[in-house]
Amino acid sequence: MQFDCVGFGLCASDYLCLLPEYPALDQKTELIAFAKNGGGPVPTAMVTLARLGARSAFIGKVGDDAEGRYIIDELQKEGVDTGGVRIDPESATPQAFIWIDNPSGKKTIALNRTGISAFKATELNERLICSGRILHLDGREVEPSLLAAECARKAGRTVVMDVGSLRPRIESLLSMVDYPVVSENFVLQYFGRIDHAQAAEKLLQFGCSAAVVTCGNRGCFGATKSGIIFQPAFDVNVVDTTGAGDVFHGAFIYGLLQKWELASTLRFASAVAALKCTQLGGRTGIPNLEGVESFLNTHN
Amino acid sequence: MQFDCVGFGLCASDYLCLLPEYPALDQKTELIAFAKNGGGPVPTAMVTLARLGARSAFIGKVGDDAEGRYIIDELQKEGVDTGGVRIDPESATPQAFIWIDNPSGKKTIALNRTGISAFKATELNERLICSGRILHLDGREVEPSLLAAECARKAGRTVVMDVGSLRPRIESLLSMVDYPVVSENFVLQYFGRIDHAQAAEKLLQFGCSAAVVTCGNRGCFGATKSGIIFQPAFDVNVVDTTGAGDVFHGAFIYGLLQKWELASTLRFASAVAALKCTQLGGRTGIPNLEGVESFLNTHN
Repeated sequence: MQFDCVGFGLCASDYLCLLPEYPALDQKTELIAFAKNGGGPVPTAMVTLARLGARSAFIGKVGDDAEGRYIIDELQKEGVDTGGVRIDPESATPQAFIWIDNPSGKKTIALNRTGISAFKATELNERLICSGRILHLDGREVEPSLLAAECARKAGRTVVMDVGSLRPRIESLLSMVDYPVVSENFVLQYFGRIDHAQAAEKLLQFGCSAAVVTCGNRGCFGATKSGIIFQPAFDVNVVDTTGAGDVFHGAFIYGLLQKWELASTLRFASAVAALKCTQLGGRTGIPNLEGVESFLNTHN
Repeated sequence: MQFDCVGFGLCASDYLCLLPEYPALDQKTELIAFAKNGGGPVPTAMVTLARLGARSAFIGKVGDDAEGRYIIDELQKEGVDTGGVRIDPESATPQAFIWIDNPSGKKTIALNRTGISAFKATELNERLICSGRILHLDGREVEPSLLAAECARKAGRTVVMDVGSLRPRIESLLSMVDYPVVSENFVLQYFGRIDHAQAAEKLLQFGCSAAVVTCGNRGCFGATKSGIIFQPAFDVNVVDTTGAGDVFHGAFIYGLLQKWELASTLRFASAVAALKCTQLGGRTGIPNLEGVESFLNTHN
């Protein structure tokens, strides 16, 4: 197999502003620090896999502009294959403006989605979609995501999906996914105010192998037919939570690739996500394998 | 005289995000519209003068980077002279991230000041400082601003200063300025909760010819020894108030250059600032002379 994981989803360039305090409307404030990073849930998961030593590829769309070239360059520097990145000459590359509150590390994201066109069915390269052991999706473009999942499943690939919020035809998507990793925000939107452990269990009804609910700095719940696991978040000095979920997904996929038990995978993914949060930017703090192992050896 | 006005101050590139509503912390939102503009109080005032047909020049510092080149290009496209822009090889160009609430047009600015170095006394070119009939300052770099004002006054030039907030040695600065144009924020910081008309009058004590207090969408007060004038703001469809003050200062200087009465100058400057607010960006909506005149002819 050419890749360990192929990811398909939205990409953007991130403008990260660390602020002394999240400001109210009609204020002026000065940044503590600034960073520009390539961003987007799936590309950041692919970068995580590359840092950990796995072979990853990204399929997505950028505009024919400096931001698009920046995104591709950043992925290539990380060793993520970008052969599947299409350039849309008609529109600009999406940008995410992120204001991070210090010291909580909580952030608000203003996304400039631009008019970038959705992937057409004819633009999806089946061979490329199936060229990894795992396919990772963000499900933001419903039709091409369904097509990609269907094609990967037919070819015997494992499908992972990051579900950050409620999307159209979510049931169809979930029924094509082996490992949904959903946010607490999605749980609230889909199930209402239910227990997160219960939500993880309910997701199994879609036929997946395991389901995970991530709950930010509280930790995550994983459900399989054998039961529920809770993994608390590691206590680190948080600077910026941007991309913490995306990095968790990448590290979770790394655990799947190693065929680890769910408990070990969740512990590993939590550690990688925690380390990411100690630096400004969605990608700056992503550790390599040695970095995670050394962290895990000193944290029980 | 080579120029009608020379301006010295901070410059930045503006990233303008028009949002459906100013978001709380820990939210995700999508932009209604995005614009990138050259920014900074003095450069935007110089662009205003250029659009109105006056000859203006900007003195300031940028980093040796793409943002710095962008700022210089934007000024040159407008016809603003950039011979006095120095490039600091040691640091990055400042950036302003601006989130605008729709439909109020109110905004919050997060400034990435970077470590860009202050102008040294030896870097100020006296000949250039005195090469305009008027010198416009933002007073943000106290020492070089004082030096520039002193040198301009000695050469018989008129000095205008935009005072957005309280600065060190403000009294020394104010005593060198012919026309201080101060914000209501400065009034609050310096005088406390006093009447804005009274604040304008008190500023005359520093020896200036006239003093102006701007009060956002309520209007402005101008004081001379002959008395106080109030100019209400024009009622327009506000999209974005970014740079409204800066544009007001540029148009105010235009009135000084024409030797108009204070009342006419304030009415003109209010109209130019109001027109600016009808479009996204600190500079996009700045009208030319014909545009202001046609607006004034239809608004009493």
